[in-house]
Amino acid sequence: MTTRPDSEGRLATLLSYDCWNLLETAHIARVAWVGAEGAAVVPVNYTVVAGAVWFRTTGDSTFAREASGQRVVVEVDQIDPATRAGWSVVVVGTAELVESRDVPDMLIGLEVWPNGTRSLFVRVDVHEVSGRRLYGVDGS
Amino acid sequence: MTTRPDSEGRLATLLSYDCWNLLETAHIARVAWVGAEGAAVVPVNYTVVAGAVWFRTTGDSTFAREASGQRVVVEVDQIDPATRAGWSVVVVGTAELVESRDVPDMLIGLEVWPNGTRSLFVRVDVHEVSGRRLYGVDGS
Repeated sequence: MTTRPDSEGRLATLLSYDCWNLLETAHIARVAWVGAEGAAVVPVNYTVVAGAVWFRTTGDSTFAREASGQRVVVEVDQIDPATRAGWSVVVVGTAELVESRDVPDMLIGLEVWPNGTRSLFVRVDVHEVSGRRLYGVDGS
Repeated sequence: MTTRPDSEGRLATLLSYDCWNLLETAHIARVAWVGAEGAAVVPVNYTVVAGAVWFRTTGDSTFAREASGQRVVVEVDQIDPATRAGWSVVVVGTAELVESRDVPDMLIGLEVWPNGTRSLFVRVDVHEVSGRRLYGVDGS
């Protein structure tokens, strides 16, 4: 019989400070918006600069067509199946398309793992950030 | 100088057969729907039974209140930051709330890592499944 710490499976609300720190440790976010057919979701490589979430897209993407100027939700999580410990953060904001000539220098190097030219940057101006930590099987 | 295989960063469309097989290998999905305030996303523990995606929720959750009978999107991905290889699958379907007494026996054991009683099951009847594989730095 294994010990089951009291904390196992506990969900704790994260402070926004911790949410931002965790967002800086991950590489992949899922961006959701309300599209022509309802909810839509895509995974993206993202980064955080000066309190905004940034990612890249193409000028002809569904996202660029549907989500520009709109409310979007950005979800990031890291949960280890072995320990069942982890966290998730959800950001709500407004998506603004930005031409690459107009982005801060530090963003030019934002890496996108799939091939292809993504001439547009998307800046999500954040309205809300929330997150939860899940405590795992060994108290982790 | 490292070798960069031609496949690095290539995105390939997955067959639906492969999408279903990959869905059976993961534990966490992100479910998106159109809520009262726009797009909403939550991470869930899920499983696949007989061509439907199942997860659990509470009777008083925002999801139960807003998404019952509605179109939802379920996103699952696994991407290794070290190799930059991985895959993502997106399922579009209709969410039906099911009381626990009415679910197939094999679902009673559907594990949910966070604590708490989730008396409702959600069955997503799938309309569309699509996915992409991302080839990584070593041809993986």
